[in-house]
Formats: sequence, C-alpha cells, structure tokens
Amino acid sequence: MRYPSFRSVLAAAAPVRVAGVHSALGGILAEEAGFGAVWASSFEISAAHGLPDASLLTMTDYLTTAAAVQRRVGVPVVADCDTGFGGAMNVAWMVREYERAGITAVCMEDKVFPKMNSFVAAEHALLDVDAFCHKIEVAKRVQASPDFFVIARTEALIAGAGMAEALRRCHAYADAGADAVLILFRAKVRTEIVEFLDLWSGRLPVVIVPTTYPDWHIDEIAAAGVSVVIYANQGLRATVSSLRHTFGHIRDEGRSAQLESRIATVPDIFALQQLSTWQEFED
Amino acid sequence: MRYPSFRSVLAAAAPVRVAGVHSALGGILAEEAGFGAVWASSFEISAAHGLPDASLLTMTDYLTTAAAVQRRVGVPVVADCDTGFGGAMNVAWMVREYERAGITAVCMEDKVFPKMNSFVAAEHALLDVDAFCHKIEVAKRVQASPDFFVIARTEALIAGAGMAEALRRCHAYADAGADAVLILFRAKVRTEIVEFLDLWSGRLPVVIVPTTYPDWHIDEIAAAGVSVVIYANQGLRATVSSLRHTFGHIRDEGRSAQLESRIATVPDIFALQQLSTWQEFED
Amino acid sequence: MRYPSFRSVLAAAAPVRVAGVHSALGGILAEEAGFGAVWASSFEISAAHGLPDASLLTMTDYLTTAAAVQRRVGVPVVADCDTGFGGAMNVAWMVREYERAGITAVCMEDKVFPKMNSFVAAEHALLDVDAFCHKIEVAKRVQASPDFFVIARTEALIAGAGMAEALRRCHAYADAGADAVLILFRAKVRTEIVEFLDLWSGRLPVVIVPTTYPDWHIDEIAAAGVSVVIYANQGLRATVSSLRHTFGHIRDEGRSAQLESRIATVPDIFALQQLSTWQEFED
Amino acid sequence: MRYPSFRSVLAAAAPVRVAGVHSALGGILAEEAGFGAVWASSFEISAAHGLPDASLLTMTDYLTTAAAVQRRVGVPVVADCDTGFGGAMNVAWMVREYERAGITAVCMEDKVFPKMNSFVAAEHALLDVDAFCHKIEVAKRVQASPDFFVIARTEALIAGAGMAEALRRCHAYADAGADAVLILFRAKVRTEIVEFLDLWSGRLPVVIVPTTYPDWHIDEIAAAGVSVVIYANQGLRATVSSLRHTFGHIRDEGRSAQLESRIATVPDIFALQQLSTWQEFED
Repeated sequence: MRYPSFRSVLAAAAPVRVAGVHSALGGILAEEAGFGAVWASSFEISAAHGLPDASLLTMTDYLTTAAAVQRRVGVPVVADCDTGFGGAMNVAWMVREYERAGITAVCMEDKVFPKMNSFVAAEHALLDVDAFCHKIEVAKRVQASPDFFVIARTEALIAGAGMAEALRRCHAYADAGADAVLILFRAKVRTEIVEFLDLWSGRLPVVIVPTTYPDWHIDEIAAAGVSVVIYANQGLRATVSSLRHTFGHIRDEGRSAQLESRIATVPDIFALQQLSTWQEFED
Repeated sequence: MRYPSFRSVLAAAAPVRVAGVHSALGGILAEEAGFGAVWASSFEISAAHGLPDASLLTMTDYLTTAAAVQRRVGVPVVADCDTGFGGAMNVAWMVREYERAGITAVCMEDKVFPKMNSFVAAEHALLDVDAFCHKIEVAKRVQASPDFFVIARTEALIAGAGMAEALRRCHAYADAGADAVLILFRAKVRTEIVEFLDLWSGRLPVVIVPTTYPDWHIDEIAAAGVSVVIYANQGLRATVSSLRHTFGHIRDEGRSAQLESRIATVPDIFALQQLSTWQEFED
Repeated sequence: MRYPSFRSVLAAAAPVRVAGVHSALGGILAEEAGFGAVWASSFEISAAHGLPDASLLTMTDYLTTAAAVQRRVGVPVVADCDTGFGGAMNVAWMVREYERAGITAVCMEDKVFPKMNSFVAAEHALLDVDAFCHKIEVAKRVQASPDFFVIARTEALIAGAGMAEALRRCHAYADAGADAVLILFRAKVRTEIVEFLDLWSGRLPVVIVPTTYPDWHIDEIAAAGVSVVIYANQGLRATVSSLRHTFGHIRDEGRSAQLESRIATVPDIFALQQLSTWQEFED
Repeated sequence: MRYPSFRSVLAAAAPVRVAGVHSALGGILAEEAGFGAVWASSFEISAAHGLPDASLLTMTDYLTTAAAVQRRVGVPVVADCDTGFGGAMNVAWMVREYERAGITAVCMEDKVFPKMNSFVAAEHALLDVDAFCHKIEVAKRVQASPDFFVIARTEALIAGAGMAEALRRCHAYADAGADAVLILFRAKVRTEIVEFLDLWSGRLPVVIVPTTYPDWHIDEIAAAGVSVVIYANQGLRATVSSLRHTFGHIRDEGRSAQLESRIATVPDIFALQQLSTWQEFED
C-alpha cells in the first residue's frame, strides 16, 4: 500500500482534519493543503451529479468516486457510506468492495435506507439500535485487514431522539465493535456537543462535522475531546460560488481576460495531472 | 427529448457560447449562466481524475461523464471525443454509444491515438488526412438521427503543419461530411485565426477555443465569422484556485467561519440538487 | 428507436414468450430463437457475478447489463427491477434512468428492500400495499413516453399471504396505474394460478414465470388467460451445465478434440459478434 | 490476498491449465473443475457483449469483468489486455489499474491498437519491436508487487512474419523483462510450435492457446516444453450451443419440462451464488 491507513493517521496525530471532496482533483488539493485524510462525501458526490443526497446514486457510484480519489492521493480516504446501502448483507458486500478498492475507513449511519441528507428538514427515521449494531458487527467480521476502520454515525440528535438516546446508541455501537463514533448535530450552538463529549469520556474516538458551527476553532475542538474533524462541504460550496462567478463573468464581459490572473493556469493543471511524470513513460 | 439538439441551438442563435465542464454540477451552473451548450472536456474530465489528458481515461469514462451532464441540463452537451478513441470502427461505436446516451454533438480531432493534450509542448502526430476523412464519413454514416452533429477538429497548426495544410484539411473534412470545423491555435496573437476565417469564407460553421487569447471579445469573434466559442477550461481553473484558497484558509485559520459569507450555502446546494422536486415523489 | 416497445409487442401478439438472460449474447440468441422479448433477470445477472439475488448488486449493475442487452437486440428488454431499488424517489430515478437507456418495460415487486430471491426458503416481507401503489404511481408519473410499460409483481403468495391478498394487491396495483401484473407462485401445481386467472378476469395482462411447473404448455397457458410467459432462468441453468461439462471434459481428457463437433465454432462466434458488418467500417 | 498469484501457481505446478471465461460464473466453474487459473478473454468478453474482438470495448469494460471474476475465485486471473490499450503511457496506467484490482498477471500482444482478433482473416499490423519492448519495460517498471507477471504475446506468425521474426521478437521481449512469452499459431498442424519450442530452449515459460489443434494432449504439450495452456474459448462456444439448444427447445416444445433433468437446478445456482454463506450475515 502506498498510503497510510486511516487508523495509522489517527494514531499518529489526532485531531485529524479531513476535507470533503467529490473528485480526485479535490483530494489532491486537500492533501496539498495538509489535510490528514479526505472524506468522499455523499452530499458532495450527489451534488456533483446534480442529484439530492437521498440514496439515489448507488454504492457503485459512491465507490467509483472514492476509489478514484484514493488512487491519486497519499492520504487515506474516509468513505461516507450512508446507511451501508441496505441491510446487513449489503454491509458485508460494501466492506469487501471498499476494502478491495483500497479504502481503509468507512462511515455508516443509523438511519433507514433510503436515507435523506441530515441537513434537510425532513423526518429522519432511525434504524432499530440492534439492527444497526448487527451491521457494525458484520462490517467488523468481514474486514480482511485488522487495519480497516469503521465509524458508526448516529443521527439520534438529527432525528430528535435526544441526548440520552444518542449516548445509549454510541455505547451500543462501541460494544458492537465500532472503531469510532460520529455524532451529528444540527444545532447552531455547541453546548450539546460539549455535553456529549463530557458524558462520553473518550470511550472511543469521536468524529464531528462542524458545518453548523464554523467558528469553532480546531484547537478548541481538540481540547474538547474530538479526534477527527470533517470539513465536509466547504470545498463544494466554494466550487459553486467560483463557477457561478466565472461563468457569469464570461457571460457579462464577453471574454475571460480579467479572470486570467485570478484562476489557476493551464500549466498549474498540468502539474496537478502529474503530466511530466507520465511523460516519462512515453516512447 | 427534453433538450434541443446542438444543431438546433446553433441554427437559432450563432454565435453559441459553450462552457467547458467536467460534471453535471458544472453543466447546471453553465446553463444557469446562460451558455447555449456545454463542452464535456477531456482536459477537464482528466484533471478531475488527477490524470493527464492523454487518452488514459477510456471512452467509458468520458461518455459516463458526458451522459451524467446531459441528463441534468436543458442545453446540449458537445462531447470532446479526442481522436474518436481509435480507428474507424471505434468511431462507429462511439457515435452509436454517444447518440444512445442522448448526446447530440461530438468533436473528433485529427491526431493519432493515443493523443496528448494540444497545449502540451510535445510532438503531435497528425493522422493521415484520408484516414481522418474516413472517420468522419463513418461517423455520419452511422448516426441514427439527421440532427446528430459532428465537429471535425484539426490540429494542423498545433502540429506545426502550417495554414495551407490546415485549410486543405478543413476542406477535406467538409467534403467528407463534417458539420463544422474546429481549428485550434496555440499562438497568443489572433492574426492566424483571422487569416483562417478569411480564407475559409464560411463554408461550414467554425468553432474556436480561445484559451490563449482571452481578451478577444465575443462580438469581435462573431464579427470575424466564428459560430461557436468554447470557453474550455476556465471553470476548471477557477475551481482549482477556489479549492486551494478554501482548503488553505481552513488549514491556516483553524475554522471556516470567515468563508461562510463567500461560499454557497447548504440550501443553495439543495436547490442545485433539485431537492424539493425530488421530495414530491416521497411517500 | 430501432426496436419495438414491449407494449407494441404485447399488443401485436399475445402471449409473448420472454427468455431470461444475463448478457447481450443471451439476448441475441433468444431473439434468434424467436422469443418476443428478453428478461434482464436479477437472478441470472447476480449468478453471472457469483452473487446471491439479494439486492447486493446495485441498480447500476442491473441497468448496465439491461442496456448492454438492449443495444444489441431487436426485441424489447423487460428489466427485472426488484423492489425499485428503494423507496418512491428511487423508483422515479430508476424509471428515468432505464427509459434513458432505451428500456421500454420494467417490473417491480412488492417486497421490502433489500429483497431476497423468491425461490429461497426465507421470510419475505411484503411492502405495505399503499406504499407500493405509490411507487407505481410515481413510475407512471415520471415516464417520458406513453409507451413505457410498468409491470407490478406481487409476492403475496410467496410471502404466504394467501389468494385474497394477492387479488386485493393486484387490483390496487391496477388502480394505481400498473400496465400488467405478475404473480409469482412457488407451488408445484397449477391450481392456484388457474384460480387467480379466473378471479382476475383479465382486468390487466397477466405475466407468469413458470419455473416450478415446467410441463405447462404455452397453448394451455395462453388459453388460461396469461399474456406474458417468462422462461426466467433456463438459459442460465443450461449454461452452468454446459460449462461444467466442458471444463470437466477438458480436465479429464487432457484436450478439447471431442468437444469440437458439439460446440459452436469460432466463425459462429464471429457471426454473433456481427464481425463482417463492423469490418465494413474499416479504413 | 486471499488467492495465490499467477507467478506462484506457475512455480508450484507447471503446466498450468487455464480456462477462458467472460464472467465470474465461468471463473467459479473453471476453478471447480480444477483449472489452475482463468483467462479473462477479450474474445469471450467481447462476444458476451455481442461485439467483435476489435478494441471496441474499452479497458474499463475488460478490467471490470476481470476484477469481477477475480473477486469471486481462489485461482489467479490472467487478464487478456490486447495491445495494452494504446501506447506506453496506457500500459503504465493499465498495470496500475489491474494490479489495484487484484489481478496478478496480464498479457499484452505486439499488434497495433486498435487490434483485430487474431483468428480473423485480416491484415494484422505488428508494432515495431522496440516500441513493444518499451511497453514491456514500462509494465515491469510500474508494477507495485514483484509478484506481478507480464506475458508478452507475439503475433508474428499470425501476421505472416515467419519463425525467425517470431523468435527474434520473443528474445527481445525476454530482454525487455517479460515474465513469459505467448506465441499464437493459426496453423492446424503443430509442427511450427514444436519447432519454436525447440529453438526457444526454455529461456522463459511459454504460453500457448491450442484453439486450432484441439487434439494435442496436455501431457504431450507439457513434454514439448510448454508451461501454460489456455483453453481460451471452449467455454464460450459451449455456452452458445447450449443456449441455442435450450431456447430452441422451449420454442419448439412450448415448455421446458424435458430440459429439467439436463440443466442445473435452481438450488445448484444458489450454491454457486454462495447463498447460505451470505445468509449468515442476515439480521
């Protein structure tokens, strides 16, 4: 393997900062910026296809993207695997396929398939806790390498089930063999997370996605006891703004001249494509 | 068909402005900005995979992307098909597959497979003119709809073969049945293009890619006799700059707070995903 | 379109005999044998991948195969779409994707995702009838062509819910807009089917899969009121026997000489590949 | 890795008998019959798609199939990689992608891309020997594992270039680092092969494909000095005969009753799908 596993990255230097991406290019730029891992985000990948993050794209689509990222970066990909794409058999198949593709970490959430993106104001049905524990057990049972890493994500707070249920679920997932827990919050204040972290007492590494509290500094997050921080969608959102501005500018100005100094050059792209390395193979 | 063919777009309102993209998301934003068509660019798609634009990705990869764009936009996709992916049989297969996927226009270039991106300072071998004419004839022979549109692209000037050869080739391609010609220039001044347009006298629509002369205004381009202008890579280059800035900012600042006002919001993404339309199907 | 829709084939000459296949090659041979349509069978496609028919393969896998068959045959493909691959939104996506790929008929069953093959002695949970009716309504609402054909398959008898429930469901599915009903029986005697057909009184065309009553003659089936007969897996099962014999023979005999007169020749394969037609495109 | 590499299989027990397949199912049955490896045949895979073996399908198609076979068998897949899918850069990409998919052996031939199947009576243009040697060097340079195995296949005799040229090429390929040579003969008599083997003197393992001399016994083949025998297409040809018979029988008899005792049963298929193993994962 030409890249470290997510487990080894986490062991070496927590907190791990992870950037959400939807293409190899995003992964390359996240690695270049010094992120410790990249998140093959269902939300980003769905958006890149112009589709909602609602289990419309298939495991094939998500895996193809995650593998295309992993083959071009030297940091581990953490694959956002939604609900595990169905039941326990689907989870077994998922782990085999992702691991075969060189992915060293996956994240599954405790919602019912098909899921809806957690930031959508919709009813989010939680899977029965035993059924989700079974999925975790199956994932851990079929992994080929002891290095493989399974993040159990609870949507208890998204579903309005409360802190006690969130904690109960995370402990059950830990009992079932999860390597870390991810707890998602939609609240704009951080009180709930801090409360969770206090009560959790570091039983397993905690992963968070600070989309709704962007002002929380990484040092404070780390001090509060978080091990992994996923900046899950800022890259996508910046891409949208940037394309809107670029296309609008060309439309309005009738030419691209004034953009030139503000956008990457063609040789910059060649470098990201590793062109000169590939040319060494030429006849 | 829920979108017009490229032929009908060109008939309705030349010059057609076309934006290069590598995903459905890019296509959606180009359409939103008012572009008349989108260019499923080999250079952009390769870069999105972190690979050089050198025939490494396969027709499957390019077609999958082009189809994923077309299924989400209401303007036609013009597919960048490199050399036609091999010989004349490959061209026949290509036309069938692209047309089956709903693509109404393709562009083929007169280089030898495997090709290297035209902006790379490398030797660019031209295909024999008769062999390329044969490819054009095959493409036109197998198309199922009379509406299908084949752009013949000459790399004569890229290969250093001179203006006379460029013109000779374009006339041969017109004789072979091409619907338009694309002539690529690497020069930074526009003298050569203007010369070409004068000598060509509008025999067929002319397509240009003004990457190296970004200050040429669309009105001047149209006045010079160009029918289609492809802004082939500005979107990709802006995306790279934007991701570099975004990831660098999060790394340096330790949070994303100050990005928030400058990047698209999560609800903006939901709108691009047509979330509310999809939710109408829910139980 | 170079092939008739399934609706038009059914209108022209019921009963339609349909052969189950898992590749374009199977489709070509079924068409050659005079079958009116081909069934892109989940069971066969799963088996070709060496995997159980249990929603492990994704819609991508099934659609890729169905499309690969349809592009090479002149009879319509009827796509076995399991449960519709999730909920109502998945069904909307499925119909769009299948129709975009040129498929003119799909079949959905009223089990819960992920499903298990109906011939497996397992518990088969039925989806709530209203939820399945909603899926049918969505499928009919999103179809682009009025020609598109949706077969609603009930597993009521497989699930042990009884004849009254099977009938109730089929009537509900007809009310919801289904174009035909498929009722699956695991019984070895035909009494139940005949009873169903009598009670159904031809409200909509009926589709059957006579795997467990192979002695029922097509004329008797037609006389009993069935419109479509799917020989869903005999091709696969014959393929397995044939490969077992062939590989075993080569192993045991140490050569293939005695097989030669009993297997297709290399030129036979060339003909199935339409080699000479393709060679006409050569330079 | 859950299966041995092709190199280790060859080291353990030459001659290795290899069966041509076009699906995981074929691979499973070849392994069951005792073959030491399976050949992911371009000819078979193309035929399964109903397309000629003429570089129409892409590396993506061939790799997808080869990987789908490898993930379900315990013997190594030897991937038929045609010309390497283009030039030397394509070869580098190919080796990386195949190795990443768990394939431990590939075979490249010294024809020009796009190639035509060697049994077709057509002109077969040979690639310049230095250019092909460069491809071999690149393949060996980029392989990640020392275990990876590259078979260099010469079409010199197919192209009518004669025995001296065939030998000259095989020696050059050995010098360039090939792990074995495959020499293809279209002749119906074995004199030429025996001559080749005598002159070659076992410099590297020799691979043959005895399609045109099916009466040559494996023991004689081994005694003559061959290390690997690929029964490249008998499975496909038997499948075609079997499907023709099966579909014709159902058409003629109006039922499948008399086939039942001669074809695999549904439970046989369940066993090949490893259904009971998968069911152990169920909730």
